[in-house]
Amino acid sequence: MTDEIVAFGERLGAVFAAYGRLCVGIDPHASLLSAWGYDDSAAGAREFGLRTVDAAAGLAGIVKPQVAFFERHGAAGYAALERVLAEARDADLLVIADAKRGDIGTSVDAYGEAWLRPGSSLEADAMTISAFQGLGSIESVMTSAERWGKGLFVLAATSNPEAAAIQRAVLTQSSREGATVAGAIAAGVTSWNQGRPDAADREFGSIGLVIGATVDLAASGIDVHGDVPRPGLPVLAPGFGHQGGEVRDLKHVFGALSGGVIVSESRSLLSAGPDGLADAIARRIDEIGAVDV
Amino acid sequence: MTDEIVAFGERLGAVFAAYGRLCVGIDPHASLLSAWGYDDSAAGAREFGLRTVDAAAGLAGIVKPQVAFFERHGAAGYAALERVLAEARDADLLVIADAKRGDIGTSVDAYGEAWLRPGSSLEADAMTISAFQGLGSIESVMTSAERWGKGLFVLAATSNPEAAAIQRAVLTQSSREGATVAGAIAAGVTSWNQGRPDAADREFGSIGLVIGATVDLAASGIDVHGDVPRPGLPVLAPGFGHQGGEVRDLKHVFGALSGGVIVSESRSLLSAGPDGLADAIARRIDEIGAVDV
Repeated sequence: MTDEIVAFGERLGAVFAAYGRLCVGIDPHASLLSAWGYDDSAAGAREFGLRTVDAAAGLAGIVKPQVAFFERHGAAGYAALERVLAEARDADLLVIADAKRGDIGTSVDAYGEAWLRPGSSLEADAMTISAFQGLGSIESVMTSAERWGKGLFVLAATSNPEAAAIQRAVLTQSSREGATVAGAIAAGVTSWNQGRPDAADREFGSIGLVIGATVDLAASGIDVHGDVPRPGLPVLAPGFGHQGGEVRDLKHVFGALSGGVIVSESRSLLSAGPDGLADAIARRIDEIGAVDV
Repeated sequence: MTDEIVAFGERLGAVFAAYGRLCVGIDPHASLLSAWGYDDSAAGAREFGLRTVDAAAGLAGIVKPQVAFFERHGAAGYAALERVLAEARDADLLVIADAKRGDIGTSVDAYGEAWLRPGSSLEADAMTISAFQGLGSIESVMTSAERWGKGLFVLAATSNPEAAAIQRAVLTQSSREGATVAGAIAAGVTSWNQGRPDAADREFGSIGLVIGATVDLAASGIDVHGDVPRPGLPVLAPGFGHQGGEVRDLKHVFGALSGGVIVSESRSLLSAGPDGLADAIARRIDEIGAVDV
């Protein structure tokens, strides 16, 4: 290794300081491809992704490709995604692959290697992941991510109304008896970050959560009062913009977690079209930067 | 359309009658690739997959590629998987893509299109899926699957010990208050299958569950006593063989659901190597066929 590995949480802190907390989604959905004048094809998804990277570079610090819209085009879509990921990383953007993968054992390890291993053709800086098979089922990926200077965002509480039944279900066994599913995942991730040898020196941990911008966190069993966790907890928060979350409510909604919130927006920016996107991103960064977090 | 669409559940019933209930996993894990004499590469994964399809064809009725081991090789791995999927379908094998995808809205729809839409380069007959964001979050994919004659297996209760805390958590809201997460998913899927217009005429529904072979179903809140559901519930059951599940216990473990159980085995068969695999499959089909289910 010639490059020193810098922990994902440290890189995230540097990006917040330099560019703010906006994350630009790369969602080559069929209707957006059409609105941008591209074919609904792997080549269209590639051009859409490259144009979005160009528009974001130097303005925003973070991009989030939605993997599903590339996977929809099969191997050709993955070749397009590889190109977009490489361009984004070359442009010094922090890249979160929104893959929501999950499995156990060697299978989940293989997903970690696909998206996070340095040198992988699909290498990103972080990925979203699901712990439906238990937080313990993804612990080996947390360990690999940490070793590689990469990050994970574990699904915890999402904005869609049909998610509440499962995410607010109450644990009746395990050491977190009485916690909700979302609360237990949040507590487990926080505790894992705190257990790293140099945790006290870190601004942010390398493992974070996905929490929707319009979620009622108290009802979800995630405590956002009291002290700010150390290291800080990265929170990928979709649902601002198009889905109705307001950045001015960020501190109220996320409380002690607000310092780690990544404001993720896709449709509300991408609908500006290829020619208006850079302006839309710059304007949004100013709006978000003007809010006290 | 020239071909008439036959519901996945009907095709599954025909496969059970013709070939029995064994499903052969296609898991090109690095250590298995090495044992088979292949490189740990996309080309190695392709050859491994094609040899496994050759060995299974005409003997077993179902194969299950583990997508993670192909995704690990990026776009080239997906090109290999496309080839394996096409060969398997050409060989009249029923193909379950073990992808464990999950998301909401247009993103989860894109996953459905990737794996299930007729004509997609990654087309399979069914896929595994996660409902961490709520069973409602995947309902549009259920509807598409049904329309395309395809199937889904929704993660419900898995064998890994760290899964129990979340999967046995108890719902405190929604119409299934008091049910476990696994139980609510099982009840929701059963009810969805029963709600199809021609449900009463069907042997099996098109939407099934993933339930590990060594899971304590009563503790997971899945009722397997009482009447056999109509239509029957397909159950993809990994954990036989290598992980210690015994086929002779199948009826005891799965009770009313046992008629729909797909006995999924990977390592225990694949460890026979490329030259011994067909014999191992044939032997195992005989063993499973000798057990009363």
